[in-house]
Amino acid sequence: MRRLTLALDVMGGDFGPAVTVPAALQALVSYPQLELLLIGNPAAINPLLVKTDSVLLERLTIVPTESVITGDVKLSQAVRERRGTSMQIALDVIKSGQAQACVSAGNTGALMGLAKLVLKPLKGIERPALLVALPHQQKGKTVVLDLGANVVCDGLMLAQFAVMGAVIAERIVGINNPRVALLNIGVEETKGLNNIQQAAMMLQDAPSINYIGYLEANELLTGKTDVLVCDGFVGNVTLKTMEGVIRVFLSFLESSRESSRQGCLVKWVKWWIKRRLICQFGQLNPDKYNGACLVGLRGTVIKSHGAANQRSFAAAIEQAMQMVERQVLEQIAARLDMVLPKSD
Amino acid sequence: MRRLTLALDVMGGDFGPAVTVPAALQALVSYPQLELLLIGNPAAINPLLVKTDSVLLERLTIVPTESVITGDVKLSQAVRERRGTSMQIALDVIKSGQAQACVSAGNTGALMGLAKLVLKPLKGIERPALLVALPHQQKGKTVVLDLGANVVCDGLMLAQFAVMGAVIAERIVGINNPRVALLNIGVEETKGLNNIQQAAMMLQDAPSINYIGYLEANELLTGKTDVLVCDGFVGNVTLKTMEGVIRVFLSFLESSRESSRQGCLVKWVKWWIKRRLICQFGQLNPDKYNGACLVGLRGTVIKSHGAANQRSFAAAIEQAMQMVERQVLEQIAARLDMVLPKSD
Repeated sequence: MRRLTLALDVMGGDFGPAVTVPAALQALVSYPQLELLLIGNPAAINPLLVKTDSVLLERLTIVPTESVITGDVKLSQAVRERRGTSMQIALDVIKSGQAQACVSAGNTGALMGLAKLVLKPLKGIERPALLVALPHQQKGKTVVLDLGANVVCDGLMLAQFAVMGAVIAERIVGINNPRVALLNIGVEETKGLNNIQQAAMMLQDAPSINYIGYLEANELLTGKTDVLVCDGFVGNVTLKTMEGVIRVFLSFLESSRESSRQGCLVKWVKWWIKRRLICQFGQLNPDKYNGACLVGLRGTVIKSHGAANQRSFAAAIEQAMQMVERQVLEQIAARLDMVLPKSD
Repeated sequence: MRRLTLALDVMGGDFGPAVTVPAALQALVSYPQLELLLIGNPAAINPLLVKTDSVLLERLTIVPTESVITGDVKLSQAVRERRGTSMQIALDVIKSGQAQACVSAGNTGALMGLAKLVLKPLKGIERPALLVALPHQQKGKTVVLDLGANVVCDGLMLAQFAVMGAVIAERIVGINNPRVALLNIGVEETKGLNNIQQAAMMLQDAPSINYIGYLEANELLTGKTDVLVCDGFVGNVTLKTMEGVIRVFLSFLESSRESSRQGCLVKWVKWWIKRRLICQFGQLNPDKYNGACLVGLRGTVIKSHGAANQRSFAAAIEQAMQMVERQVLEQIAARLDMVLPKSD
């Protein structure tokens, strides 16, 4: 089995090494082909490794850092203060070839911004996109991108996002010949913005992309498409709108005025509905969800939820492994060559 | 009391004259200052007036038309076939000064498109905007615009929308010194698109606009602002996203798999939650809601829900009256002079 090396920013997230280091060890146990670079403060990491089997330790290297980009820092500040931080170094080791992907539970905006500064775009890609696989009503998932990496996108960028989304839907979500749609405000060809219409023309003509046309935002959770493409501004607004509506519904179910008049069973039903909603749709905020992926750079960057527990962070590591082992970036490059005009 | 004349496109909507004519008569009874032009097919209207008091009939004029723009027609087709339709003539009588506002339950896209063709923008306004007052968690309403009249907006247009929204929030919703925010993907000044940043600069400097900064889409229903401004593409996507999430939740409450295992009380709780959700948030689709208003033209255009019943259509007539009697357009013109650089 081919070895693969991932870099983990173990200092990021709400709980830092207390969660990320045990998750790293769990991943090493599960995947014998895996080698990990733990990027962080050795004084915080070493105590968590005391009882670790020496065979596991051989596949683990600590890359010492002194500082960390905190969760609430602005991008401009993160850029100024990035040197020597665990996030920056996790990206540097991808650039130098020591690792093929990285996982961080740190600040999403900073991670996106620094990744774009440190890593070059994949050949044939204008700009990377932030992507997530959203659960839909048919019990499957829809890959949605871009969610905020680029507030302005031209038609070619949107078409490239479509290709990247299709490869991820195929290779990671496991959908054969995934349907690809562009988010628009109507389904007629003449609807919407110029860049969307340009992307539509490119995708209509593209072989090996199953382009199904425009989709409106009210169809986002219905499972009518496997990949939904939009610019980063609209994607970010869309996800945050969903988060806002869900939050209102949850508070609606908690409404105390009604509760005082109700019996235990009624409260239980509300609680049950609430749990199911949280379970299915709880993490839709692009700043918070687990396993968002910045794709289109030379190296994969996986964003784990800031509040991730050991299991979630291990799942993000697994996602990074899949991106490498299933050769997603290579597939994207090959597919781009086939379907789209070269951008250089 | 000052007389006012409204034009009603009585042929639009799912039920046509059967709903719109009784609603018109109801409004005439309630408002002695009101005169109405019923634009439509006399053969469909006259039978509904047989039992009407002759005193009421004196304030009612039928403007005969032969055709109607159907609910599902595309804008391009509506433009081609507009001559002689009830919608076109309802707009023509505003242009000629015979009426000050019109109400239609017809196709939203066609109504917006034709209104822009027929009516000129208000002095100082670049483009009209489609606006709605959305219910929020604090039991109040937030005026949101633009919802689709303009897919591309520059900074000045957004600033003008802010002024129009503020006047409507003050005069129609009844909020003193309404808070005005711009929809953006973060709250930092450097976030988002150039046009939003330009609008922010204009609004910061504008006297008599209570500008509170950027708001993210997850705050849309929380009541943190009284007016929320965005371009028509983003506004349309946002409202449709909300509609989609609400639809998923409603179907989630209907889920039959669970129901078979549950007793009557559980079903009743689900039904009750569902009713309350529909009641509070049921009509969020920009193509469907009641009382959307196209503002910024010389004459007010109110869009009634296509499935409106007599009461809803009468409410839309009342809203049109309020727009005229509370001199919203005049207030907008005056406020623009005070707060923004002249566009001509």
